[in-house]
Amino acid sequence: MRTYWDCIPCFIKQSIEASAISTDDKAIQEEIIRQTLKMASEMDLNTTPPEMGQKIHRLIKKLTNSPDPYKSVKEKYNKWAMDRFSNFKEKIKTSDKPFETALRLAIAGNIIDYGVNGKLYSENVQHSINNALTARIDQQAISELKEEIFKAKTILYLADNAGEIIFDRLFIEHLPKEKITLAVKGEPIINDATMEDAELAGLTDIVEVINNGSDAPGTILKSCSEDFRSRFEDADLIIAKGQGNYETLSDADKNIFFMLKAKCPVIARDLGCEVGEMILRNSKAFRESLI
Amino acid sequence: MRTYWDCIPCFIKQSIEASAISTDDKAIQEEIIRQTLKMASEMDLNTTPPEMGQKIHRLIKKLTNSPDPYKSVKEKYNKWAMDRFSNFKEKIKTSDKPFETALRLAIAGNIIDYGVNGKLYSENVQHSINNALTARIDQQAISELKEEIFKAKTILYLADNAGEIIFDRLFIEHLPKEKITLAVKGEPIINDATMEDAELAGLTDIVEVINNGSDAPGTILKSCSEDFRSRFEDADLIIAKGQGNYETLSDADKNIFFMLKAKCPVIARDLGCEVGEMILRNSKAFRESLI
Repeated sequence: MRTYWDCIPCFIKQSIEASAISTDDKAIQEEIIRQTLKMASEMDLNTTPPEMGQKIHRLIKKLTNSPDPYKSVKEKYNKWAMDRFSNFKEKIKTSDKPFETALRLAIAGNIIDYGVNGKLYSENVQHSINNALTARIDQQAISELKEEIFKAKTILYLADNAGEIIFDRLFIEHLPKEKITLAVKGEPIINDATMEDAELAGLTDIVEVINNGSDAPGTILKSCSEDFRSRFEDADLIIAKGQGNYETLSDADKNIFFMLKAKCPVIARDLGCEVGEMILRNSKAFRESLI
Repeated sequence: MRTYWDCIPCFIKQSIEASAISTDDKAIQEEIIRQTLKMASEMDLNTTPPEMGQKIHRLIKKLTNSPDPYKSVKEKYNKWAMDRFSNFKEKIKTSDKPFETALRLAIAGNIIDYGVNGKLYSENVQHSINNALTARIDQQAISELKEEIFKAKTILYLADNAGEIIFDRLFIEHLPKEKITLAVKGEPIINDATMEDAELAGLTDIVEVINNGSDAPGTILKSCSEDFRSRFEDADLIIAKGQGNYETLSDADKNIFFMLKAKCPVIARDLGCEVGEMILRNSKAFRESLI
């Protein structure tokens, strides 16, 4: 997905929020914001939004001398989700449709996204979960995803955020684990999940986990390691969580199921849905609708 | 009021919305947005937000070769309000407190502000009016304003937007008209009222109307004519409508009553109120609270 003009105020907002999260030094905050504005004034709109996100957050890490400014945010939501893990598990176990319930919770967890909302509260997450079990979701896409999971020999699951990754575990437990490789980010970027979070979620005990070698808040293939790119190329099926992965892979010629909460108007317009909707969408459907 | 970092994404949003209102030429739109980002990257935060607004809209007028890009917007809301004028008048006439009802409507009309919301709909205006008659408002400030109006020999009333100015007429009809001078903007700026709008509202028939000589979306004294500045200096009481006038005059050492809808979080924080609240606030109260 290309960058729209409407993304630009949001980049600036992210830069302001992220600078406040990353440092108390007002002069450094100012430098981050001014440099972001300058970069935005020169940016190429044909790149995807996470490419700008990557630049902003590289700048923040450099100027604040902090390799992982969102560490405490990640810890907070990992703990929040872990504290509720057995409760969620019980919800899935007692559900009439455990696969669908687990999938819904995995999408609901995508609300934990500091790239879109730098002022997230636990109440927002709880609200997203409360709605998730009854909200509208594409039943045909669920059925197709089940079929694709059955057919695929190798499944690459692209994680999105810390906290959310605990919800991913709930879902992954209902997938054929031997087929799954889970990919996390290669370096800290916003509150995206890294290997540490996958370990904390217990995912390294049940599936193969790799890192993608990149510090982008999405999957910018040219920014990923060669090893990751070949895994991506070889996978029969890709499950891609979150807005950043949608933004960077929506035009990729692969069999991808995107699972996300549509959290901003630009994404919602691109997907043809309302802000707040739970999305399960197969990339194939896009390509077919273009023919 | 100084500019806060949180104002910056809003400037960029305004620039995007205003460029779309002002021209269909995508290349010019892009130039406007990129130059706004560049200006924002270099801006002095000690200036008030309307000073940046003035720069952005000068740029738009220059690049689009259009001296009055919001002409049709102004016409639309003038007509909208004029169509309802006798209905509003009746509402005031049959009210138990005609002064307060007229004042409430004048504040409600301040919703018609393209500086804050480039995607305004008539429904928003209707909603603002429906709420205005019952919404919380500072009763002590109303009482003080009445007293100040009684005491003052000269009252300078600073209009804000077209459309809204019809609501101002409703209020001005309940003021001692011989004391009133109404000031409009010297040149078109966003959808702010100019002499043409004052004439259409019939205000030139009932009070003296002057223009302030400026193209700023507020009252930046150094940008106003000498004549206006001396009127401002000499006035016993100033009634200042809207956010732009609040932002530019909140620190002025004059007896000013600000009347506005608080439409953005930064203003609301500065005023200590919620977004959407109807505000009537005397500048003296600020000064006294600082002592």
